Amino acid sequence: MKESLNYIYKEQKEVSIYGGIAALLGWDQMTYMPSKGSEERAEQLSLVSRLVHERVTSETLYNHLKKLNDVANSLTKKDSLVVTKLLRDVEKARKLPAEFVEKMTRTTSIAYGIWQEAREKNDFTLFQPHLEQIVELEKQYYDYIKLPGHPYNTLLDDYEEGMTVEVLQKEFSILRKQLVELLQTITTTERYQRQRPVPLTLNSIQQKESCSILLKHMNIPFDRARLDISTHPFTTSMGDDDVRFTTNYERGGFFSSFFSTAHEAGHALYELGILKGEYKDTIISNAPSLGIHESQSRFWENMIARSKPF
Amino acid sequence: MKESLNYIYKEQKEVSIYGGIAALLGWDQMTYMPSKGSEERAEQLSLVSRLVHERVTSETLYNHLKKLNDVANSLTKKDSLVVTKLLRDVEKARKLPAEFVEKMTRTTSIAYGIWQEAREKNDFTLFQPHLEQIVELEKQYYDYIKLPGHPYNTLLDDYEEGMTVEVLQKEFSILRKQLVELLQTITTTERYQRQRPVPLTLNSIQQKESCSILLKHMNIPFDRARLDISTHPFTTSMGDDDVRFTTNYERGGFFSSFFSTAHEAGHALYELGILKGEYKDTIISNAPSLGIHESQSRFWENMIARSKPF
Repeated sequence: MKESLNYIYKEQKEVSIYGGIAALLGWDQMTYMPSKGSEERAEQLSLVSRLVHERVTSETLYNHLKKLNDVANSLTKKDSLVVTKLLRDVEKARKLPAEFVEKMTRTTSIAYGIWQEAREKNDFTLFQPHLEQIVELEKQYYDYIKLPGHPYNTLLDDYEEGMTVEVLQKEFSILRKQLVELLQTITTTERYQRQRPVPLTLNSIQQKESCSILLKHMNIPFDRARLDISTHPFTTSMGDDDVRFTTNYERGGFFSSFFSTAHEAGHALYELGILKGEYKDTIISNAPSLGIHESQSRFWENMIARSKPF
Repeated sequence: MKESLNYIYKEQKEVSIYGGIAALLGWDQMTYMPSKGSEERAEQLSLVSRLVHERVTSETLYNHLKKLNDVANSLTKKDSLVVTKLLRDVEKARKLPAEFVEKMTRTTSIAYGIWQEAREKNDFTLFQPHLEQIVELEKQYYDYIKLPGHPYNTLLDDYEEGMTVEVLQKEFSILRKQLVELLQTITTTERYQRQRPVPLTLNSIQQKESCSILLKHMNIPFDRARLDISTHPFTTSMGDDDVRFTTNYERGGFFSSFFSTAHEAGHALYELGILKGEYKDTIISNAPSLGIHESQSRFWENMIARSKPF
């Protein structure tokens, strides 16, 4: 049992290092990579994804995990949590052929470069065939994994473990009714109708300065994080002490970059703030839910940055 | 034979992808990485170096290579060149234990962060213990590899294959005599003595602009390369179409950044200009000699950028 535990913790640690490497390859592609580096970057990313897949789906890991799962009751709470969650992910990954994982990574990586180009040229037809390929691959992904219920449950589960379309449809229908009512009440008030767009546009340098003031107030620790520029803002993490987020000053106006910076900084603070403790370098230490991630970033964007006192 | 050839080309291709990944990890560490990311970066780099070492030293690769080497006469010129060079490198790598390779990578990676800090604080004592560790590891490296002749031959061979201290001492003693004479002739001329330092200092933004004019004249293809800032200027390559070089605008004056940019851009042009043809993704496609690399960059720096017509 001790041997099996050692093995699964060592494997999780290595997979987490691979994860940091893949995050850097992706971050660099979206921020600094010269455009012609795209093909080779796709090869680098698909190699890393294959290596991770090989480790995660190895017979040895699977056997150790099954052995541990059989005696889950005699494990500590931590070990038992790690074993259950890891076994679930491993069983999912074992349904995917290695070539499929490599192909998915290569396709989305190449598509990113094309998407950037298509966006710049405002020409969707450039991106369309790549998007079609990705949709096709997502359908194949569904065929491999096939969780019960609505087909989208399979895709949803990667971002919101255990969540289903059935549950969301029920929740959203209640929310929809109440939110539409609330919105109608707001938009018919005299005060709302009096509103005019704020006549404020700043150039890139001014946008950059205003974001830098914002980030100072948000207390971003810049020895553990950094802000860069990308076509579409995003946040990613190379490790516990290295979180990168981006913004974009090119788009018109001032509010777009200001609020997107607040939003991504919210993601960054969430990543930086996850106290890993004894779960460090285990599967449990990853942010568990995209819903919570978005709620943190939306909180900074909407509740704080858009608030009157702020 | 066909099977062995396929195998060694596939392995070289993968090792070259790993090389690109390691280059990005190193580049990012020296340009953009938040300072506290240092520990995790060292782990990422040492994992990649271990993976490369495992592949390069595998029994399977070695057996295929030995088989091919035995029939080198019946191989094409290309295959025979690749086999000979690869076998030499593989035999060298097989003398090194995997733990040593990982330790060397981790140690130098951690040391880089400390060196940056020590340089900023102008405090050598911070860096000293790390430098001592590196010297110790280089001695161990010598013990593992032990090429004939002067101990430094072993270290030299990694940068200038086949070059020895014995050859260099002879060459340098001739050069030294002639160069010292030449220098004395120059420095005693009236014209030389009339020279005064150029009273020109530019701020960072002006330095950046002047370097950008220089790079335009040097025809750097910025869809295959990029310039960034690091503590000490360097050039590295993530792939045939992705070469990164750096400069530093912080140091006093204007000439330091201008000439170092010319120098590194010279390295970048050399990397970008190596026509790989049928040797693409083989061990032969790497720049073969640091001496030639430096001569290209020195040519741009000293012959072109410092020339009167320029």
